[in-house]
Amino acid sequence: MYPVTLDGKSVSAKRKEIKEYFNNTFDLFEKVFELLRDESVFYKKSEPTRHPMIFYFGHTATFFINKLVNMKIIKERVNAEYESVFAVGVDEMGWDDMDESNYRWPSVSDVRAYRNSVRELINRLITELDFTLPIRDDSAMWIILMGIEHERIHIETSLVLHRQMPIADIKEVTAFNICEHSGTAPKNEMLEMKGATVKLGKEKNHHLYGWDNEYGSYSELVKDFQVSKYLVSNGEFMEFVQNGGYETSEYWDEEGLEFLKRSGTKHPHFWQKDGENFKYRALSKVIEMPLDWPVDVNALEAEAFCRYKSKKEKKEYKLPSEAEFRLLYEYANLEDVPQLHESRANLNFYHYASSCPVNEFGFNGIYDVIGNVWQWSRTPIRGFKGFEVHEAYDDFSTPTFDDKHALILGSSWASSGNLMMKHSRYAFRKHFFQNAGFRYVISSNNSESKDIYESDALVSQYCEFQYGDTHFGVENFALSCAKLAEKYTLNRTKALDLGCATGRASFELAKSFDAVEGIDFSVRFVQVGSKLKEDGYIAFSDVIEGELTQHKRVTLQELGYEELADRVSFWQGDACNLKPNFKSYDFIMATNLIDRLYNPKLFLESVDERLNEDGILMLTSPYTWQESSTKKEFWLGGYEDEDGNAIRTLDSLKRVMSEKFELVAVEDLEFVIKETQRKYQHTVSQVSIWRKR
Amino acid sequence: MYPVTLDGKSVSAKRKEIKEYFNNTFDLFEKVFELLRDESVFYKKSEPTRHPMIFYFGHTATFFINKLVNMKIIKERVNAEYESVFAVGVDEMGWDDMDESNYRWPSVSDVRAYRNSVRELINRLITELDFTLPIRDDSAMWIILMGIEHERIHIETSLVLHRQMPIADIKEVTAFNICEHSGTAPKNEMLEMKGATVKLGKEKNHHLYGWDNEYGSYSELVKDFQVSKYLVSNGEFMEFVQNGGYETSEYWDEEGLEFLKRSGTKHPHFWQKDGENFKYRALSKVIEMPLDWPVDVNALEAEAFCRYKSKKEKKEYKLPSEAEFRLLYEYANLEDVPQLHESRANLNFYHYASSCPVNEFGFNGIYDVIGNVWQWSRTPIRGFKGFEVHEAYDDFSTPTFDDKHALILGSSWASSGNLMMKHSRYAFRKHFFQNAGFRYVISSNNSESKDIYESDALVSQYCEFQYGDTHFGVENFALSCAKLAEKYTLNRTKALDLGCATGRASFELAKSFDAVEGIDFSVRFVQVGSKLKEDGYIAFSDVIEGELTQHKRVTLQELGYEELADRVSFWQGDACNLKPNFKSYDFIMATNLIDRLYNPKLFLESVDERLNEDGILMLTSPYTWQESSTKKEFWLGGYEDEDGNAIRTLDSLKRVMSEKFELVAVEDLEFVIKETQRKYQHTVSQVSIWRKR
Repeated sequence: MYPVTLDGKSVSAKRKEIKEYFNNTFDLFEKVFELLRDESVFYKKSEPTRHPMIFYFGHTATFFINKLVNMKIIKERVNAEYESVFAVGVDEMGWDDMDESNYRWPSVSDVRAYRNSVRELINRLITELDFTLPIRDDSAMWIILMGIEHERIHIETSLVLHRQMPIADIKEVTAFNICEHSGTAPKNEMLEMKGATVKLGKEKNHHLYGWDNEYGSYSELVKDFQVSKYLVSNGEFMEFVQNGGYETSEYWDEEGLEFLKRSGTKHPHFWQKDGENFKYRALSKVIEMPLDWPVDVNALEAEAFCRYKSKKEKKEYKLPSEAEFRLLYEYANLEDVPQLHESRANLNFYHYASSCPVNEFGFNGIYDVIGNVWQWSRTPIRGFKGFEVHEAYDDFSTPTFDDKHALILGSSWASSGNLMMKHSRYAFRKHFFQNAGFRYVISSNNSESKDIYESDALVSQYCEFQYGDTHFGVENFALSCAKLAEKYTLNRTKALDLGCATGRASFELAKSFDAVEGIDFSVRFVQVGSKLKEDGYIAFSDVIEGELTQHKRVTLQELGYEELADRVSFWQGDACNLKPNFKSYDFIMATNLIDRLYNPKLFLESVDERLNEDGILMLTSPYTWQESSTKKEFWLGGYEDEDGNAIRTLDSLKRVMSEKFELVAVEDLEFVIKETQRKYQHTVSQVSIWRKR
Repeated sequence: MYPVTLDGKSVSAKRKEIKEYFNNTFDLFEKVFELLRDESVFYKKSEPTRHPMIFYFGHTATFFINKLVNMKIIKERVNAEYESVFAVGVDEMGWDDMDESNYRWPSVSDVRAYRNSVRELINRLITELDFTLPIRDDSAMWIILMGIEHERIHIETSLVLHRQMPIADIKEVTAFNICEHSGTAPKNEMLEMKGATVKLGKEKNHHLYGWDNEYGSYSELVKDFQVSKYLVSNGEFMEFVQNGGYETSEYWDEEGLEFLKRSGTKHPHFWQKDGENFKYRALSKVIEMPLDWPVDVNALEAEAFCRYKSKKEKKEYKLPSEAEFRLLYEYANLEDVPQLHESRANLNFYHYASSCPVNEFGFNGIYDVIGNVWQWSRTPIRGFKGFEVHEAYDDFSTPTFDDKHALILGSSWASSGNLMMKHSRYAFRKHFFQNAGFRYVISSNNSESKDIYESDALVSQYCEFQYGDTHFGVENFALSCAKLAEKYTLNRTKALDLGCATGRASFELAKSFDAVEGIDFSVRFVQVGSKLKEDGYIAFSDVIEGELTQHKRVTLQELGYEELADRVSFWQGDACNLKPNFKSYDFIMATNLIDRLYNPKLFLESVDERLNEDGILMLTSPYTWQESSTKKEFWLGGYEDEDGNAIRTLDSLKRVMSEKFELVAVEDLEFVIKETQRKYQHTVSQVSIWRKR
């Protein structure tokens, strides 16, 4: 099954195509979970840092609902609890809660029933949503496609997780039959590639769905280079293993040595020691070592191999860059889907549910340019010029623009949908396992490096707001809020900073509270506080005039937070549907939050459950109600009711809150957000302090 | 020829349709000018308050270019001089310069050559512009359609102007043959119409081009009413004339009496006294009175007739409302173009280049629901709920939302394109002549009235900025600027306030200057200062929270400007292409203007020509460069040049200006713009004072 194109002549025909594509995706994803031997396996994890399988089983369905709710395309949730606990599972970073003792996971059959409800809803939306062709990224139908492509990603990553499970937990499934043939490894050789100016990035009006990182433009002059004809096979990699590659520290960089130390790895992850020899772990089978199949390694192992080979041959081997890979792609005369016939390469589940020999699929003399396994690159992922986040999924890429996530190229046997498109760009931490191997190049092309965050203007604006200078004599807002917190609280064991943005107030609150949890809806923001805590500094750019910016850097030490960092933790979360484990606070602060929620009442009506007795809730807001954040029917003020009475937010707050809270104080508090050296937002928020009855 | 639809399957087929429609429109417009007997007539006016014919002949072509330049779709003008002098000709208000002695109009053949160049360019753009289907209002092709529909309007209004010219100046043209038959007037009668809830306004994704005022929604419960079967014929109106209708002041309201006094009118404008009787002026012929054709009158005459008939019959006759008319439309089982066949009514030049008998085109028993002549309504035009201006033509409608412009309904024999669409909404001052007559109703439905400006949030925000309260201790910006003007000028005969917005600084400058001209690009803004001067007050709404606003009213008296008003005048103009007659100033002030121009250098390089010797130019700006106002290639600062040097605006100003100006002083000046009661823009503009060398 091929991904749908965004253009076409008939809306009704497009509905039909999308519906087929959606149901095929949903089916295939569920089929992947048939590999788990029994229901108990759903509650196991493939790695300590990942969620148990049941999480992923629910996650791809909740994703649709969460995006549709946030984009205000639907108003009702299907199951608020599931849509909170199955919400976040990305990457292994600090902002999601992996402490499973906090969760009581639902049963497999309940989640299956939930998935069926979601499937029914999505099918109905595909039939009913108003849209025009071509589908653009501001269309409601784009959100459906986003959900589908998100699920396609999880089809591939779940297959990796399943392959990492003990073989006893996995059963064979006919749909996922592996390749049955293998032989000796072909001798690899270097091919000459002509350099050229490479242009990457696709246009906004491209006819295939794309993730944010695919759009924009990038141009690089690539010099002539050499590239290996084949992916590195298990046979080729064997020499590295047998020559003590994993034990020779000069082949590994700092991150690689750390990986070896933590994991104790002595050979590729999917090789299994069998006396003197190795067997090979396929998805649901352990087989004799297929020497002519590509080796599955992470980026650190691939880099170590390159260093080993460089030393041995006195030439510099390295992984290809993104731009070099595009030249291979052109050289291979490849066409993008849907023109490409899927039989031409080992992808889209067309041939096998496993790798196959590295000399089986050739393209103009070079093999596996696409398909078989992904190929690690030496290029850290970044946004192209003109990069913009999509508002429905603003943290798809930006958390990976940190120079620590390397692009994987070319797709694998488990890739379908967007994953196998020419312009797709996926990146992982270098120690992660995917269906990935590598090929090597000899190249004098460089990859320059660029500081994190600079491309994210809004995050930088908030960094400057929270960590930058003061203006017009108005005190730093985060500091003022923390002072008010101290003024109005008696118990100070645990505080919640809801809508924490880049985290400054969380650190400030830690001066008076033993523990502070900072939560924001956007991972882009949460990662700033998290980085300050973990790395001891943050960097951002402050706008001078037009596009001119000055680089700023703030350290934990300068801020005097070195002793406080352990008290603070940061999490991604939706204030309207917060996970149940965020509770037992003495103080909850919601700064400039309520007029940005899709349903503020939903938050206000249950926030008391998270507060301890006598707990204090502090709301600050300028009540800037706008349809883009909150549909008018959910505004708490700023409108006239049916009788023509002016409804003000503070009055609504009193009405909504009075049963459970006592209003302690109301004050005004100014803040200033710098847009440029000469332009500022100057706002007078209203602070209301509420004590739980 | 029918207007093109916005949807379709093939972009290339749509290009072909648009090209045909464009050339047909351009041809037809030029055909209308063949009615002028010779070239000398091009330099005559039909009314003292209108431009000479040559203006209109150039205007419809320059409109295309001005909109395309302003929307940054093209970068080069075709003829900057023409595109300045032919730019504004709407309505008879104070903001355009009608003093013809200021112009030296170009020759007809030069303008014709110019039109040919424009035609060629537009044809090329229709072939080359990138667009998708359906065409939406953010498409470049929308601007082409806007130009076409604008020209369709001028086809109709030019025909009215030509009909107002002395018959000796007009010749017959075969394409414009009038109806050849007429007879006695049919006796009019009243038909019962069932009430219903009427919904007006069309959706953004409607398949026909629309002007801003057509979108949004409006709902009204219309009670049962009665309506005249026919339009009022010349025969029916004759009784009013013969019974002294024009001499009986009780039939006329204040505005009507003013019209009678000023014009000396004793009978319909297109009737010509011929002894005891009347003849009838058609487009290019004077004929025997066609008693069964509709009378052509303005709204004041139509209202007077209703009062006369009401008094005579002791029933209340009035003009139909917009909502009532929609019920007629439904009752008539009319379909919108392109379903409607043009042969069904006297419109689109299908039958005649004149009116025809009122009993010739019937629809379900009621006649001339569309076509023949427009029908005056009693409804002043306003924006529907959700009204938004189109950024390319922000003054299409808003200047008419003043309760002084009445909607005309149903289209005429000279209507084509958007003019004959179901959802089109055109309004004129009540004393204006169009191809318009009327029918009457007996109705208990009211039309409520609403204050001017309230629907225009941006204009209101600027009114509050210029005439409202001060905040954070920052002095009113218009007052501060006027003080600086006084500080730095010696000669104070004439000042120009360029980018005058709602005009406050122009009045303030009049305290020190003998004459002040305020110019703004947007008529929406210019009309505020103009209204303050003419009517002695302005009203606007100040946002409290969300949609809640407070009504504010400021008078000339309160401001202490009563003695100054005569010194101030307001004009619409484009700072990058100002008309030549704006010159000989001692002082030019451009406040917060240069970073909003599409090509600021164009302005700066020629502004010296408008200054007297020793004249002072004062620029204030926060240098908030943004692509939406100024394409990056035209920014004066806020970017890095090719060598990586940071380019700041002040340095560029010095470079651009140094040859012709001496820099006298640079200061910072704050201003605060209120968005809501709690949210403000707080800006520090840089003021630079330049003396002409």
